Order: sequence, then structure tokens, then C-alpha cells
Amino acid sequence: MALAALALTPPAHADTLVDNVNGITLDQDGKVVRFTGLLIGSDGKVRQLLDRKDKRPERPDFKEDGKGRTLIPGLIDAHGHVMGLGFSLMLLDLSDTHSLAEAQAAIRQYAADNPEMPWIIGSGWNQEKWGLGRFPTAADLDAVVADRPVWLERVDGHAGWANSAAMAAAKIGPTTKAPEGGRIEMAGGKPSGVFVDAAVALVDAAKPKPLARDLDRAFLLAQQKLISQGITTIADMGTTIQEWQAYRRAGDKKQLAIRILSYGRDIDNMALIAGSEPTPWLYDDKLRMVGVKLYLDGALGSRGAWMKAPYSDAPGQKGLPLLTPAQLRNKMVRASMDKFQVAIHAIGDAANAEALDAIADLSRDLPGERRWRIEHAQIVDPADIARFAEMKVVASMQPIHQPSDRLMAEARLGPDRLKGAYAWRSMEKAGVRLAFGSDVPVESANPFPGIAAAISRTDAAGQPVGGWHPEETVSRETALDGFTRTAAYAAFAEDRLGTLMPGMRADFVILADDPLLASPDAIRKMTPLETWIGGYRYYKKQGGAGG
Amino acid sequence: MALAALALTPPAHADTLVDNVNGITLDQDGKVVRFTGLLIGSDGKVRQLLDRKDKRPERPDFKEDGKGRTLIPGLIDAHGHVMGLGFSLMLLDLSDTHSLAEAQAAIRQYAADNPEMPWIIGSGWNQEKWGLGRFPTAADLDAVVADRPVWLERVDGHAGWANSAAMAAAKIGPTTKAPEGGRIEMAGGKPSGVFVDAAVALVDAAKPKPLARDLDRAFLLAQQKLISQGITTIADMGTTIQEWQAYRRAGDKKQLAIRILSYGRDIDNMALIAGSEPTPWLYDDKLRMVGVKLYLDGALGSRGAWMKAPYSDAPGQKGLPLLTPAQLRNKMVRASMDKFQVAIHAIGDAANAEALDAIADLSRDLPGERRWRIEHAQIVDPADIARFAEMKVVASMQPIHQPSDRLMAEARLGPDRLKGAYAWRSMEKAGVRLAFGSDVPVESANPFPGIAAAISRTDAAGQPVGGWHPEETVSRETALDGFTRTAAYAAFAEDRLGTLMPGMRADFVILADDPLLASPDAIRKMTPLETWIGGYRYYKKQGGAGG
Repeated sequence: MALAALALTPPAHADTLVDNVNGITLDQDGKVVRFTGLLIGSDGKVRQLLDRKDKRPERPDFKEDGKGRTLIPGLIDAHGHVMGLGFSLMLLDLSDTHSLAEAQAAIRQYAADNPEMPWIIGSGWNQEKWGLGRFPTAADLDAVVADRPVWLERVDGHAGWANSAAMAAAKIGPTTKAPEGGRIEMAGGKPSGVFVDAAVALVDAAKPKPLARDLDRAFLLAQQKLISQGITTIADMGTTIQEWQAYRRAGDKKQLAIRILSYGRDIDNMALIAGSEPTPWLYDDKLRMVGVKLYLDGALGSRGAWMKAPYSDAPGQKGLPLLTPAQLRNKMVRASMDKFQVAIHAIGDAANAEALDAIADLSRDLPGERRWRIEHAQIVDPADIARFAEMKVVASMQPIHQPSDRLMAEARLGPDRLKGAYAWRSMEKAGVRLAFGSDVPVESANPFPGIAAAISRTDAAGQPVGGWHPEETVSRETALDGFTRTAAYAAFAEDRLGTLMPGMRADFVILADDPLLASPDAIRKMTPLETWIGGYRYYKKQGGAGG
Repeated sequence: MALAALALTPPAHADTLVDNVNGITLDQDGKVVRFTGLLIGSDGKVRQLLDRKDKRPERPDFKEDGKGRTLIPGLIDAHGHVMGLGFSLMLLDLSDTHSLAEAQAAIRQYAADNPEMPWIIGSGWNQEKWGLGRFPTAADLDAVVADRPVWLERVDGHAGWANSAAMAAAKIGPTTKAPEGGRIEMAGGKPSGVFVDAAVALVDAAKPKPLARDLDRAFLLAQQKLISQGITTIADMGTTIQEWQAYRRAGDKKQLAIRILSYGRDIDNMALIAGSEPTPWLYDDKLRMVGVKLYLDGALGSRGAWMKAPYSDAPGQKGLPLLTPAQLRNKMVRASMDKFQVAIHAIGDAANAEALDAIADLSRDLPGERRWRIEHAQIVDPADIARFAEMKVVASMQPIHQPSDRLMAEARLGPDRLKGAYAWRSMEKAGVRLAFGSDVPVESANPFPGIAAAISRTDAAGQPVGGWHPEETVSRETALDGFTRTAAYAAFAEDRLGTLMPGMRADFVILADDPLLASPDAIRKMTPLETWIGGYRYYKKQGGAGG
């Protein structure tokens, strides 16, 4: 990786002055505040924002010249999957290979670099791009790795390529039958090594479960990647006990740099991890279990999202709820009684309506401020939008999904239902608080394309020109707010994270340009020059303009 | 409870002088060191042991007059079950009731005191002691608790008494059949409420699993009990993920007072909790996962201990190993490769021999100092004792088991095999390191009866006079060593715990009398006046002589 190594045990130092910057933050009320110097206390919190004319402390313990560059609050990803990202970074990626020989060389190298991995797992191969004229075979893989299983997903996810050791581990032989909806490629009366569609599961089932050391390694990779992208805090949406233990191990070893706001994967993980109430803030505000993530429906692409009316491209199909009304409410009550926050995954308009119904049913009788979250809130009946605001439900949305999903969403929904699709501005106008995230690793965690999508509703190619349903674009300030102040609010963290006002944790990012002034295309291409968390610089771009 | 409440958030203070004491510790080599003053640094570690003639610091931040009482190192229980103790303390105890009416009053009061408990669980009833002339009934219970299940074990453990709600929860009705070896008491054609022997399981199966808040409460009760008994550190032999999470919650909330040396309950818990190596010392040395606990056989009382020859009172029965040779060795290798310590439960002489065989098989090829432990080492073939010493295997034994088991052990083993039973002195003579514990809650955690048993081999009544196989008694110094210095060594904690030499954690107990001079009977009755951990006083006996 071309990233600067993270300094994981930062040196202890006292007061720090980061001076000569184009400083930007939102204040507690969301108003833009500009400053030229940032004074950080030895506790890692912002002590003072300095204006051009303010007097600087005479001898700070540490002084950093910002050279006029832009400084913004650390970005908060309100919805991601930390370990999912980590594991995706550990996999062998063959998408850049242009021939079988090139792929074989990459596989051999990866296996040599990872001698302790029991299986070599990867993805991205495409025999058409290689000009191979045939599927690759187990023998092609055996030639480079014979000592352990190799299992590689095709670029489209619809086929897998195994070596002989993987087929042996999965007990696949000449008489193995493909399951319905699947196909086993054959050669000379035995499986050739490629498994198509449902047959992929035959080999998948034999894959070893990750060990703790795999989780630890994946976590460090994810953390490094996120920090290099300017993410200083991430809400981990659906933490398992295994994942939580990896976060704690990192914390115990003083290797936890990023801040993780954790939501347990359903009630069992929540209770096993946190017990009968949210955890305290751990490791200097680096880790906390705040609440629980509940899945109410699936996704739009696979038509798992639960819709009020049938899919436009699949008459009769409306998706399905994953929880009955009673199940949903029972889980919500169980979590809420113990003061856990509830975050409900709802993509389809029926799922969103049901989540809102459940919230309405329960809000009256539950004590305290519940700050309900609906995750994705992707396709919402316009008639339901006002209910988010009425019940103060946070809409936790991922702007980058809009350009990624555009053509698929048009096919699934038809023109009539697009009014409530990825409807950030309608939410905002109704008074709904918008928290923004990436859904990493479904999308890249890079928040800058997300901000660009939020303000332009265009994709990386600037398409469609003028933006897709441009009435739903939000301002640069709203986009920044969604990735900072409101993302913190959405996880009960606004007392310490999300802005750079005095008393808040000194989490910030240094950029070459000002995102409140740049074009969407320029924002999309921004990369952090530096990332600071709690007053320590954890990342500095190598050879960057900020050098 | 009559105990002083634990001050769970001790005040921060700096240097402390505990002066005018009859101070005793062992040094690193096990030699007795005496002192009259203990100087503790602000880091909670012993700074200096002061002799009568040594100069005292002029103005310590905090000074305590020991009034000539005895100060010994905090006692370390080398083998206990913290949450088992906690849950036993949470149960309703009816063993002191003398009539059904008295029991009913106690049950009503307990239910009122514990409104959140979904089931009322208890034990200790005895209708004969009550002079009832019949078994009690569900109706007797319904009269005092009807709103939730009540389920009470008879004093001998061979029967259970349920109310109607418990029977309903267990789906027990007029047609329910008792399993083989069990009996359901009937009245008027339906179950009366008492279930005998194997039928107990019918109701047991319906008991709810404990919630996190139950674990948290049980932990605090156990901790309070242990500290009041002078235990400052305990090796938790077989920690589950649920239990570990409770310890961490206590640590996170600064409620962890006692030190816990944790051994995961088999490999799965070990790996889920600690990952790929033992955890760091957490919470100022209050918690660490050191290793794994493996069960190789059962217990002597139930003839589950695995013997070389048949039981004397059950010809043909030799008990059974719970692991095959390959399973045992695989688990040992898996743990050891990741530097976890291995503690093997072995009670019978065959189990001890097999554990030693496995250690011999693996020791050659495993790197580092493994410091194997055998837990209980209760019945050992005298021919095998030298092998403990040769391979530096720690014998982790519980002296109190000897008086408790005496008559049963004589019946099970016959006279010939008693030579290697509870054979502390034979172990010591062979050069084996002895770590002592209680096996709480199988026995009381109180270490003083354990010390008394170790030096006298008599029970609470002083029986048998002169001691049972008195050739196996050890010295007072060896008994203290087993509960302090070697108990620390047994868990790789000798660099910080187990003695009061300078640099060690200031964990100590204040007693009215000197256990190196007192009679076994006097030692058996000793109770701590104060217990200090890390330089803080966590317990002070109310109205005690140390007032």
C-alpha cells in the first residue's frame, strides 16, 4: 500500500498549535465558523479557535504550520462495516490482471506473502479480459499454489475458480452434483475447477472461519484505509462479538486510532457485548457500543427491499420484511428499555413505513430520548417523510448509493416512485436530520465522492449532466454537516465529536482545497493530506502537496 | 450481608505508610521476611519494607496505624470459579428455615427484594427439619409467589419444589411422564409440585438463561465476598465469553477491585476472548487472560475421575477420560503455539498420568516456558509424582478438599491408593511447586480453613485427631506460599503479585493474629480485619477487633 504507515503509538505531547490554516467547522447549531489557528490541549481536545487577529500562545509545546491549507473536522462515516472493509482489503484482488500468466504471478506472490493463511481467497478475475478463450482450470492454479486451497471469485460474483486443494477440502469429485441453479464446469469427466452461480456455495461452505489473528489484521488494514481517507470516526453498523473483541484487543494494545461507534448485530450481540446498557466511552473516546442494528428488509438490487407496490421490473414481487411486526417491536423494546439506541435498516418504502409505524407505537411509552435511526431510508413514500421529522427520527443515508444505483433504481421503481428515492433535500426541507455515510465495503469509504454526490447527484463521469433529480441536491454545508456534526449527533456523540468547537476532540483533516468552495468534480477527487485524531497526526500523505 | 460495603471507586492518594504492624511476606525465593512498616507508592506498589529501626518518611500523604496487628500478603486463590460463587450468592438460601411458614416468609421477602428476577431460584429446604410430615406443594408456594416461577432445590440436591408458574413454564401437566430414574409427586391426579431425582431436569430445562445484568450483579457479590475473605487475586478456572464480558464491564466502570487471572473455558472461549495471544494486563493489573482450562476427567464423588484401577466401591468402574489423547494434545498445541498457558483438570490417577504423558510428548517441541498446570492433581500414582517435578508442572491443589472428601475418598479408593491422594508433602519433597486454591463454589473460598487443612489434615471439628495421613501435612510457610507466591507464579504473575517485596502490587490483609504462629484451629477461624488491593483499602470488618 502506498499509504504512510500509521504511527499507532503516538508520542505524548502537550499543547499543540496548528496555525496558518483555512479552518472550517460547523458550530453546535450547524453554522459555518472559520478560523486560522487551532489550539489543542494536552487532553487532545480543542482549546481555542483562533482568528487571524487573535494572539497566539508564545511557546506551544508543538507547532505545526498549515501553510494556508484547508482544515476541516474529521469526517464521520455514519454507516459502515469496519471488518467488512478489512476483510475486503485482505483478499487477493485480480481485477488489474490482463492475462492468465499475470494472474498466476499475482496469486503466487500473494501466497508467498501470506504463508500463514490457510486458504488463498480472492476475486476479480475475468477470462475474457485475459483473452483466454476458455475458463481457467484447477490445474492453472495448482501450478502456482498446490500446498493449500485457492478460491477466487469471478469479477461478476457469478462464478468461482478453485484449485485441487480447495475442491478436496470441499469434498468435490467426479460424482458431485451441482445444486439447482448452479453448474460445475467439467473436463475429462471431472470438475475442471470453475463453479457457476449456485454451485459456488459448494466450495464456499468449506472455507475456514477467520481466526482472531485474521480479524486483528483485517481491523488494522481497515483502520489504516479509513484514516487515509479522512475518516476519523465510523459507526459500525452491526458489530458481532468476534468483531468487538478485535476492536478491544486493538484498544488494549493501544493500536486503536480511529473512533468506532458500535451498533450490535441484533439483540444477542448487543447484550453479549454491552450487557444491560450502552458501554462507557472506552480508550479515550475511541470505542463505544451505542445501540443495536436491526434488519427490517433487504436491498434494492436483489429486490429484497420491501416495497408498498410491486417492483416495476418484476410484477408481483414486493420484497419481504425480515421481521414480523411483533418481532420488530419486541427487539426495539428490549433494546430501548436498556437505553440502547435502535438503528433500523429499511430500504424499501414499505420497510420505511413499517419502521416509522413501530417507532410511533413505541415512542409514547418509552422513557428518555430514544433518537431512533433509520438506516438507508432509501426509498421512502413522500407521504412518510414528514413522519421522520415529527418523531425526530434520524435519516442515516449514503449519498454515494444514488449515482451507483441510478439506472438500477429507475428499472426497479419506474418513474413515479423516484420522488422519494435518495430524497435528501426533501428530508432536509421537512426538518429531518441527515447523517451521511458510505455503507463501506458496499461502496468505497471515501467520503469525498459522497459529498460530491450529495451536492450534485452526478456520478464520477459527471453524469447525468445537471444531476439526477437535481431538486434533491443539498448544499455543501449540509453535506459537510451530514458527514460531521449530524453524524455525531446520530450516535449520541455530539458532546465530543463532529465539530471543532472548544471542548471537542481535536479530530481533523487537512486538504489542499476548500470543499465549501470547490466544484463537485474537484471535491470528488480530494484526498486528505493529513488526518489528526485527538490532537495526534495519524496520517500524512506521502509526497503530497502538503509534504 | 454483614460486610462493609466495598469502596469501589477508591480515592486517589499518593504515598501511604502502614506502620506498626507485624508484617510478614515471603521473598522471591520463598524465605519469610518480617517487617513493621509498609511504604506504598502512589502507583499502588510496595516502595519499601521498613524494619523497626528504619526511618519513616516524615510526611506521607496517608498514614495508617496497624496497632501491632499482623499484615500478610493478599491471598491468591489459584483455582476458583468467580461467577459460580456469584450465582450461588444470588440464590435464595432456605437452609436456616425451621418451618414451612418460615420458608414461605423468606421466599416472599426474597421475591419482593428482587422484583426484576424472572424466576425465583433457591435451595436448602428440608421438610423433615420443618416437621411437616409431607412434601411441600406448589400451592404452598403459590400462596406467597404467584406472579412468576419459583424453583427450589431440596437440601440434598435430590428433589426440586416448583410453584404453578414454574410447572406451567416447563409445560408440565397431569400427563407429563417422569423420565427414567425420576419421580413426579402427584396429588389429585396432577403433579403436586415436587420432582425427585431425574425428574428435576424437567423443570431445570425451563429456567431462563441469566441476563447480562444477572452476571453483573453476581460478579459484584462474588467480588465482595472474596475480598471480605482476604482474597485479593483469584484464578478463574474456565471463563466463558459471557463471564469475561461481565469482568470487562466491571473494569470499564471502575468497579473491578479484585484481580482475576482468567483461563478460558476450553479453546473456543480462549480464542474468542483473547485472540491469538494472552491479553495484556488490563485495568492496572486487575484482569488478564493467561491461558486455557481443559477438562480431562470428572470428579471423585460421582466416580467421574479417571482411575488406573477400578473404584474400590464400584468394581469394574474406572471413570472415563473426557478427551481422547489426540484431542487433548491438539488443544494443548493450539493453545501453546499462541503462548497461552494450559491448565488441565485431572483428578484421577489415570487422568494425571495421561496429562503428564501429554506434557512429555509436547514439551520437547514447544518453544518458551510453558509452565504447565495440572488442576486438582488429587489422586496421583506415587510413581508419577516425580514427573511433575521433572517437567516443572505446577500442582494446583485445594487443601480444603481433603477434609471434605476424606470418608468418600477412603470408600472410593481403598487403603492402598491413599498414598498419592491429596499428597501435598510428597509433591513438595519431590520438588513440585504447589499452588493452593479453594475450587469455590464447590468449597467456600475462605482460605483460612484451607491453610488449616494443609498444615493439619483435620476438619473443622479437628478430626481425625492428629490428622489424616499426617505425613502429608506441610509447614505454615509452605501453605502461605501456596496461597501467595506460588499461586502468582502459577499464573505467570510473580513479577507483580504474590509477595510484598518492593515493586510488587501492595495487596495485603490485616489479621488479628499471626498465622505462622497460630494453631490450626485458630487459623481456621481467622477472618480478615482489612483487605487492601493496590494500596487501597477495599474492605474493613465492621465492629472487628481492628475497629
